Amino acid sequence: LKAARDSKLLLIHTREGYRADLADCPPSKLTRSGKTFTGADGPMGRVLIRGEAGHDITPELDPALGEPIIDKPGKGAFHETDLQLILQNHSIRTLIVCGVSTEASVTTTAREANDRGYECIIPADCVGSYFPEFQKSSIDMIRAQGSMSGWVSDAAAMVDGLRGWRRLDPGCDLSPLLCARSVIWRNMGRARRCASGSTAAFSMR
Amino acid sequence: LKAARDSKLLLIHTREGYRADLADCPPSKLTRSGKTFTGADGPMGRVLIRGEAGHDITPELDPALGEPIIDKPGKGAFHETDLQLILQNHSIRTLIVCGVSTEASVTTTAREANDRGYECIIPADCVGSYFPEFQKSSIDMIRAQGSMSGWVSDAAAMVDGLRGWRRLDPGCDLSPLLCARSVIWRNMGRARRCASGSTAAFSMR
Amino acid sequence: LKAARDSKLLLIHTREGYRADLADCPPSKLTRSGKTFTGADGPMGRVLIRGEAGHDITPELDPALGEPIIDKPGKGAFHETDLQLILQNHSIRTLIVCGVSTEASVTTTAREANDRGYECIIPADCVGSYFPEFQKSSIDMIRAQGSMSGWVSDAAAMVDGLRGWRRLDPGCDLSPLLCARSVIWRNMGRARRCASGSTAAFSMR
Amino acid sequence: LKAARDSKLLLIHTREGYRADLADCPPSKLTRSGKTFTGADGPMGRVLIRGEAGHDITPELDPALGEPIIDKPGKGAFHETDLQLILQNHSIRTLIVCGVSTEASVTTTAREANDRGYECIIPADCVGSYFPEFQKSSIDMIRAQGSMSGWVSDAAAMVDGLRGWRRLDPGCDLSPLLCARSVIWRNMGRARRCASGSTAAFSMR
Repeated sequence: LKAARDSKLLLIHTREGYRADLADCPPSKLTRSGKTFTGADGPMGRVLIRGEAGHDITPELDPALGEPIIDKPGKGAFHETDLQLILQNHSIRTLIVCGVSTEASVTTTAREANDRGYECIIPADCVGSYFPEFQKSSIDMIRAQGSMSGWVSDAAAMVDGLRGWRRLDPGCDLSPLLCARSVIWRNMGRARRCASGSTAAFSMR
Repeated sequence: LKAARDSKLLLIHTREGYRADLADCPPSKLTRSGKTFTGADGPMGRVLIRGEAGHDITPELDPALGEPIIDKPGKGAFHETDLQLILQNHSIRTLIVCGVSTEASVTTTAREANDRGYECIIPADCVGSYFPEFQKSSIDMIRAQGSMSGWVSDAAAMVDGLRGWRRLDPGCDLSPLLCARSVIWRNMGRARRCASGSTAAFSMR
Repeated sequence: LKAARDSKLLLIHTREGYRADLADCPPSKLTRSGKTFTGADGPMGRVLIRGEAGHDITPELDPALGEPIIDKPGKGAFHETDLQLILQNHSIRTLIVCGVSTEASVTTTAREANDRGYECIIPADCVGSYFPEFQKSSIDMIRAQGSMSGWVSDAAAMVDGLRGWRRLDPGCDLSPLLCARSVIWRNMGRARRCASGSTAAFSMR
Repeated sequence: LKAARDSKLLLIHTREGYRADLADCPPSKLTRSGKTFTGADGPMGRVLIRGEAGHDITPELDPALGEPIIDKPGKGAFHETDLQLILQNHSIRTLIVCGVSTEASVTTTAREANDRGYECIIPADCVGSYFPEFQKSSIDMIRAQGSMSGWVSDAAAMVDGLRGWRRLDPGCDLSPLLCARSVIWRNMGRARRCASGSTAAFSMR
């Protein structure tokens, strides 16, 4: 989906991660169900810690020069980050949200964006989850009740749309949306996938 | 679940709604899929407008004196409201989130709370949705990956818990949680249910 | 300064105040220097409590229909309120900040606005303080270092400006600013002035 | 004031600065009074840009290991940063605010903190300004109206206080305050001082 780059959309990369000393990590996230969680050692370094190998963005999605990276201390990309300021400075009103995982960071960020008045497009095949049933129902939830919290599309339609066609979600009039000037390219993928030793094959095409 | 009141928990009621002149309602929420949405006339007054009959809290859940009501301009109860200040002033660290709808306001608020370091308990039979499959998968999502974003329980266990027993979600050690001093009693129910003419029978026990 | 109304600027009124049960008032504000403070009885009702006579907006500044009122739990008008959402929905980028007191609510709100990327104009004779030296130095601080955090002007210049002339602060090119579509008309005046029994004569012309 | 370190207070360092591509810098800050401002070249690198020599913290105030550094895109240290999360995670309720400049970053942060329910102590000789009259009146403003927005003290008293004595501001009962577990050590000093070529002699003792 480097079509976005050709179309001069602003790509913003986000990754969840905490300070090495965990100063910004609430106690509620340190252990879950009796197991140590954030900050624990994993095959690719400490889990969700900034600067560790497993926390970095997957090489095939490497941010290009001029594409902001947002380090966020949670699922929502707006909470205690400078995302709102960056979007506002670029007069961006529409977000194309991609990445993993669908039911956590993607959905949380889309709902935060919706509450803040942004239009969101979620290309269903550009977001992923460990759990197929969560992938499906997260997408269904977005589409529900008249696409109340965002529009669902797919990569091919987005690429076409960016080229001037319209094959997106019926009911989604893309003329306002495709003056879209932004893509949030959410690629926390590596952080979670690798650091936790998963070999899940999904990638974000 | 007025057991919460007996236990001297702080009950906080929330409802989504917008100013009558829609000053706080983003354009993206005014029409969805070509239909007028927020602010439109409905059988119980204009949809999601503060002060309209359909926006008020269902009588059977009437806030008692001293129970704060939070009018929120979106799904998340933290966004542009004084909820954080109220919780902090009461030294509250654990929330019991109830209400409708499970996949929208409940989940969004629980995720916002999780990002802010609060522990959340969601009694599965105290939250509801129009869509049974969303109800199920929303609950599953909360429970997933070691209860990463909250603990799932049910009304009976909560009542027992509040009385001193422990029958909650295995893996959820309630000793820290049941020093819980707060219940967010989320009852937007009427707003959505009635204003949109639904006759769905679920209630929040 | 009802010239603003003629010019179709959006007037937003703000007032500091807390819930009657003080749920949103931090302990640090309840007593200061050993004296009870917020919530105490005063000649016009409990100090800074919403709904009390002394908390309301002075009659001569009565909000007209369609002018939003923002109840804020502190000095800054952005903190835990829906101000950002309202400004954004109206595509407002420039604020004209008026009211009392200059060194507290006015300055705090102007600095918050500056951090959020808004341009601020402060008409020096439309803001007031109990303390003449604070009034002077607050205005000087805004003007300092190349008007780093806002532009200083006065009521007559603003009225002229709104009519198409330019007599504002030298160094302040009003062409971008006077596409200004907003006035924050900050009139907490009565709240503080009356509730605390002060008879200070300043008014907000 | 390394007495704070001996007392095991948490020292938090902040510095104002923007991304090298200025993505987070609002247009309103790029030029002021017709002159280029943020991002312009200066004797110690581009003004207020993260990573430039002039943006770093002065060597004599070098953060020790485990002392968080907060990069903030504005004057207020709370706005779009993880400060609130860090303070909350450490159960910190009282801040000792030091640094430059008194009328801008120090005061803005203290007022933000006050709105969020924190107690603030400002040691008057640990904060500085280019302008003596702003230094004086900023301190007076904090002290005004029953120390409404914070307590004023000085370095010697703080050091004594930290050692167990009480010589602070009369009216300021330090027993609650000196369970203070935090010092915000605000040392943007070098950023502004050096990058703009100033030779001002003040330092933060």
